[in-house]
Amino acid sequence: MTSTAAEQAAMRRALVLAATPGVPLGPNPRVGCVLVDDDGATVAEGYHRGAGTPHAEADALAQAGSRAVGTTAVVTLEPCNHTGRTGPCAQALVDAGVRRVVFAQADPNPAAAGGGDTLRAAGVEVEGGLLVDEARALNRVWTFAVEHGRPFVTWKFATTLDGRSAAADGTSRWVSSRASRLDTHRLRALCDVMLVGANTVAVDDPLLTVRDAHDQPLAHQPLRAVMGERDLDPGRRIFNGDAESVHLRTRDPHAALAELYARDRQHVFLEGGPTLAAAFLRAGLVDEIVVYVAPMLLGAGRSAVADLGITTIAHAFRPRVTDITVLDGQSDGEEANVRLTLTPERH
Amino acid sequence: MTSTAAEQAAMRRALVLAATPGVPLGPNPRVGCVLVDDDGATVAEGYHRGAGTPHAEADALAQAGSRAVGTTAVVTLEPCNHTGRTGPCAQALVDAGVRRVVFAQADPNPAAAGGGDTLRAAGVEVEGGLLVDEARALNRVWTFAVEHGRPFVTWKFATTLDGRSAAADGTSRWVSSRASRLDTHRLRALCDVMLVGANTVAVDDPLLTVRDAHDQPLAHQPLRAVMGERDLDPGRRIFNGDAESVHLRTRDPHAALAELYARDRQHVFLEGGPTLAAAFLRAGLVDEIVVYVAPMLLGAGRSAVADLGITTIAHAFRPRVTDITVLDGQSDGEEANVRLTLTPERH
Repeated sequence: MTSTAAEQAAMRRALVLAATPGVPLGPNPRVGCVLVDDDGATVAEGYHRGAGTPHAEADALAQAGSRAVGTTAVVTLEPCNHTGRTGPCAQALVDAGVRRVVFAQADPNPAAAGGGDTLRAAGVEVEGGLLVDEARALNRVWTFAVEHGRPFVTWKFATTLDGRSAAADGTSRWVSSRASRLDTHRLRALCDVMLVGANTVAVDDPLLTVRDAHDQPLAHQPLRAVMGERDLDPGRRIFNGDAESVHLRTRDPHAALAELYARDRQHVFLEGGPTLAAAFLRAGLVDEIVVYVAPMLLGAGRSAVADLGITTIAHAFRPRVTDITVLDGQSDGEEANVRLTLTPERH
Repeated sequence: MTSTAAEQAAMRRALVLAATPGVPLGPNPRVGCVLVDDDGATVAEGYHRGAGTPHAEADALAQAGSRAVGTTAVVTLEPCNHTGRTGPCAQALVDAGVRRVVFAQADPNPAAAGGGDTLRAAGVEVEGGLLVDEARALNRVWTFAVEHGRPFVTWKFATTLDGRSAAADGTSRWVSSRASRLDTHRLRALCDVMLVGANTVAVDDPLLTVRDAHDQPLAHQPLRAVMGERDLDPGRRIFNGDAESVHLRTRDPHAALAELYARDRQHVFLEGGPTLAAAFLRAGLVDEIVVYVAPMLLGAGRSAVADLGITTIAHAFRPRVTDITVLDGQSDGEEANVRLTLTPERH
């Protein structure tokens, strides 16, 4: 990989553009693009603002107009080769007279890949892989979903210090602190599906919307999905009009994820109950675990984690710790909670 | 309370002397003493080095000799009025011609208290309460034990994220990391009793000695105590010669603590099993909880905490968090553990 200092600087700028705050979440990756001339001066910048809007390259080319001729396009993702709601960027770059293209991450999407080849065939110089790790991290979930052909699954649970999610009589409000619950809403807002089991809907009747610190719903809501074969009362809160919802008539985690992926969903937030989570874990379909530990003892009651088929310590499920954060108690005198973020080891 | 700047400085120095590293643990409090003259200059310093050695005041008076006449003795604990292995310090101060005594913590020990009154009756000026909080913190456990007439109880347990202390087949090596186990030995070394139930001795046959990072026993070992009415095989490891041990023939936590206190023990480290810990908790006899949380799931197996008689969330045992520390994994690739230190709320 050969790139100039000016191209490296332009790629860093393109990564910043791609990560522009307020860019809507959705099925598309975040992408930034900077056009530079032979002296390394910036000619135009662009970034993708979400599904149905121009790709980053098209955005930058529109800014540049005829000044795009002879420039180098520095872009965080391999230009697409695919006509979707917008035309293929590779051809647009050729048509605009761009001389050279430097990209970070190769397009993992088989339907969109091949842009580099198209550019080369048209006589454009192409370099890939510049700052690829940063570009992949920017679209961690999208990259995972495209590469695996299914949504990324985050399993969240809250537990007492002794592994309970509810007391013996079923009461559980609240195991986790207000700060933990608010943090959970922050994480929910980063996902595009809230997934629970039919039993949880029948028993707990959760609302599953994402709400702010004042308990008001956010404008953008993930899909609320419930899976399981049993019929459900349409009067359950998950089916109210506060957000989209769907009943997936399956108990198979693979089938549920396939159906969600077919709906362009890339990030599933799995909450309650323990049986559903255990089914995903046993199927190897949990990609991230977020645990809120409350400094509380119950001594009895509902287990936060269901049977995983593990009988001996050597087979314990030992995920890798990616983060440990203390969530301080609030002014109302609640105790601190601890949030652990874990990822299964991939061998 | 009236004290001069020189006396305040002397008291800070006395607190440092009292906390001299290497001063042996034992039934006696840590005490420091500084003799100052009318100009605030230090005449002599002393501190207590453990049971059977001179008290801090006697140590300082011995250093001073005849220069003690007319000085002010600044001491972290009210001078004792009691003839034990050494004579009463109050009388020694009078005999040495000390003009004024400033102390921090009043002696909570009914057998030793009254030193201030003895001094006043002999015409010595007496001020108490200077930096009392610092002095109490220095002898946190001793103060608790003397004030409550029983040892301070630290309950330690290790748990997976889902509240298990062993897998379904009973295997538990290891739930906690090497760093957690080493940290446990550090805490054991601060106590003077290791207490377990007879069932734990029968089933797990623990050694209960305090060992260093190379698994070598420390020179000073706490008493190893096992409680319960059942007979125990004298071949169990707890009864080997590595440290003192005792079988307390009772299942009553109050009775066990009374017997240990009668043996001049002030700090009980309660480890395994859950049933014994639950008995102490239900009796209100746990003063500190140290929990090591390992980022591991078992889904089934032995519960780290036994039934506490709690049936509803409103009655959950919610101790106050005094510390949360992440114990990083070792170079051998172990995952980080989290240590929480908790104290029951006292109302």
